This record gives sequence, structure tokens and C-alpha cells, in this order.
Amino acid sequence: LVSVLSSAIIVYRLPWTWKCSKLLMKFIHAGLNTTAMILAIVSMVAAFEFHNASNIPNMYSLHSWIGLTAVILYSLQLLLGFAVFLLPFAPVPLRAALMPIHVYSGLLIFATVIASCLMGITEKLLFSLQNPAYSASPPEAIFVNCLGLLIVIFGALILWMASRPHWKRPPEELPKVPRPNGGTLEGTEAESTMTDCSNADKSDVGFNSEAARKRNLKLDEAGQRSTM
Amino acid sequence: LVSVLSSAIIVYRLPWTWKCSKLLMKFIHAGLNTTAMILAIVSMVAAFEFHNASNIPNMYSLHSWIGLTAVILYSLQLLLGFAVFLLPFAPVPLRAALMPIHVYSGLLIFATVIASCLMGITEKLLFSLQNPAYSASPPEAIFVNCLGLLIVIFGALILWMASRPHWKRPPEELPKVPRPNGGTLEGTEAESTMTDCSNADKSDVGFNSEAARKRNLKLDEAGQRSTM
Repeated sequence: LVSVLSSAIIVYRLPWTWKCSKLLMKFIHAGLNTTAMILAIVSMVAAFEFHNASNIPNMYSLHSWIGLTAVILYSLQLLLGFAVFLLPFAPVPLRAALMPIHVYSGLLIFATVIASCLMGITEKLLFSLQNPAYSASPPEAIFVNCLGLLIVIFGALILWMASRPHWKRPPEELPKVPRPNGGTLEGTEAESTMTDCSNADKSDVGFNSEAARKRNLKLDEAGQRSTM
Repeated sequence: LVSVLSSAIIVYRLPWTWKCSKLLMKFIHAGLNTTAMILAIVSMVAAFEFHNASNIPNMYSLHSWIGLTAVILYSLQLLLGFAVFLLPFAPVPLRAALMPIHVYSGLLIFATVIASCLMGITEKLLFSLQNPAYSASPPEAIFVNCLGLLIVIFGALILWMASRPHWKRPPEELPKVPRPNGGTLEGTEAESTMTDCSNADKSDVGFNSEAARKRNLKLDEAGQRSTM
């Protein structure tokens, strides 16, 4: 779950994807997030069934409260992202206004999921390690503590990648700009870079580039003094 | 601890402080962080002494590992911040290069401290609630779970404030620029806004403004395409 979520977060941050069309990348981003959502639901159902089978009450712990809050926010994020950024109906100013909120809440949900993981690991170690107990630091305890630390380090790297401005996908080129040779798009640099990504939906370039340009201009303005 | 840490993080983000000198604000930022560091050390000593008095092993839990990692990183952050940004020896390009890392690691340490809090709360509830147990959801459990959720919401608000570009302290004006009337700084707007903050160390304006301007220019460039 965490790794699919991470892939979904950094998918725009991989320079070799910048030659792919924006629409393709949006589909990949949405697809990875949908996969992560399905995994989250499967794991929640498993937790409830385990609790029911073992006669353990549901939803009593802080881990479960924060986990469920994160999943609810995540499903809202997914629906809103689909409606605003993937469907072609939302006007550009709305997209530009919602994009910083979409980015912030995506990263916040990611950090909350990591915190929820760490609480879940803490609970599990306290419940499962009995003889010797967690406090006696058996090898399992050390191993799982290291896993917890690695999850934090992994999350920190993903948040670093997602917040570096120079790893952001550059604004799209404008393919409709008249060329000096009076020719069409074929053979120009914009097109030749597009073909490197074989699945690129080329119809998207003309459709989305104006929107992307305007959105990027707006974001440039907003990000003018950002240090993140 | 979390509240002092938060104040230290958002101290540059309060528009009414923008009229104060940058050096004064740096002193407040450093002072609040030093206070938070002292509170962190006091609370760690208390935890160790409680463990020793109750014959509980130290440093066995993921909470303690992540908490100690956060405190060690925080002390490094404090020392490095003091050496680079408060002492006048570091050259401007070094300050400009380290500022995004300083901001990122500050926010990361803050998020890690919150995660560590949540794990500590989970442990404490599991240890202390015995009759009725945590899983029976007594009022104490509900109350402390709500506290945990509020800590997450509080952290989310602080991270939102700290990552909005338009809440960033604007670049300093240049007081050394020759004025059309050929006069000195007295009576100009830059000076009159400074005097609103009675403790402002005015000698800092001339000293730091050039550095601040260059740093801000550099950061503007780096933040050009940021959406955070």
C-alpha cells in the first residue's frame, strides 16, 4: 500500500516520464492511487474480519481512528481529483486553485498513513511478543523496529522528491504555435519527444497544453517565493 | 514541546512580524527552538528515570527509537542552523543552498515528532488502561484518542501554514539603494515600517538586507515551479 501510494505521488517527478503526455501520466497517477485505495480497503476488511473472528472490538484504538480518517480523506481526494483533474469539465482557474490543495492533502494523507503504520506496528509488537516480551528486545522486536525506521526514511525520501521544485514536471510546450517553416507539428521537437513514450495519447497534447500552460503560469506566480 | 516547536516553525509566517527586523525574527526562531530542545531533553530524562525507577528497560520500543532519532536530528538541525544562519560567517551561496534543506528537515522533524507522540500515546493507553482495558473504549480511551486526532489536525495546520508561498516573509527592502531625493534612510518607507517593531535591531537591516535579497532571489529561482 505505502509503496503503491509512493509511486503514485512521485510519478510526475521522474524525468524520463516528462516526454510522455500529461493525460497518460494523469491516468497512471489515478490508476496507481486507485490500486492503493483497493489495497487499503482490502487491508481494512482483513483487520475487521480478524477482530470479529478473535472477538476483539473494532475501532477502539488511536491507530484505527487515524487510519480510518486517512482512508476517508484519501477516498475524497481520489473522487475530487478524478472529477476536477481527470474529467475535462472543470475550468482552468478551478484546477489552478485546487492544485496546491490537492498536492498538500496528498502529501498529508501519505504522512498520516505512515504515522498510522507506525502506531499499528507498535500495537502489534506489544500484543504479539509475549514470551519474551517486546520490552526484552528479542530479535523480532529489533527487526520490526528497524522496519519502522526504514518506513520513516522511505517516507522522508518520497516527501523530499515530491517537494523539490526542480523535480517538478516542466510546463508543456505549445504545439499550436506557428512554426517559422510554416509546417505542421510533425518533425518538430515537441512531437519527436512525444513519440519516445509509445503509449502517449497524442490527441491530449493539443487538448491539454493550453490548460497546462495557463495552470503552470498561475502556479509559477503562486510558487514565486516558495522555499519548499 | 509540540506547541513551542510549532511556534518556532511559523514565526516567520505571521504577517504582523514582517515589520520586525530579520535578525530579531531569527533570534526568536532560534530561541523558541532552543526552548523546545530543552523541553525535549527534560522529557527524555523524565522517561529514562521513570523507566529506571520502575525497572522497565530503556529504548526497546519503536516510539523510543524514532523519538531519539528525531531529537538527535533536531539537535543537529539546531547546531547547523545556528552556525550557518545566525552567525555571520557563512557565505550567502552556502546559506541559499542550505535553506531548502533546513526548511525541509525542520518540517520533517516536526512530522516525525508528531508520529512519535502518537506511538507514545498508543503505548501509554495500552499499558495504563487495564480495568477496563483500552479495547473496551472507556471514556479515558475516547478522550485520549480525540487528543491524538487533534494533534494530527494541529500538525496538519502548521504544515499548511509553513508551506504556503504567500505566507512567506517577503524579501527585505534594500535600504542602501540611492533615493531620488538624495536623502538617507530616515523617513523612507523601509525605515518607518521597521520602527513599528520596537525591539527591532536596526543595525541588522544594512548588514543582512543584501544577503537576504540575494538569498531570496536565489530561492525565487528555485521555487519558480513549486506547487507546495
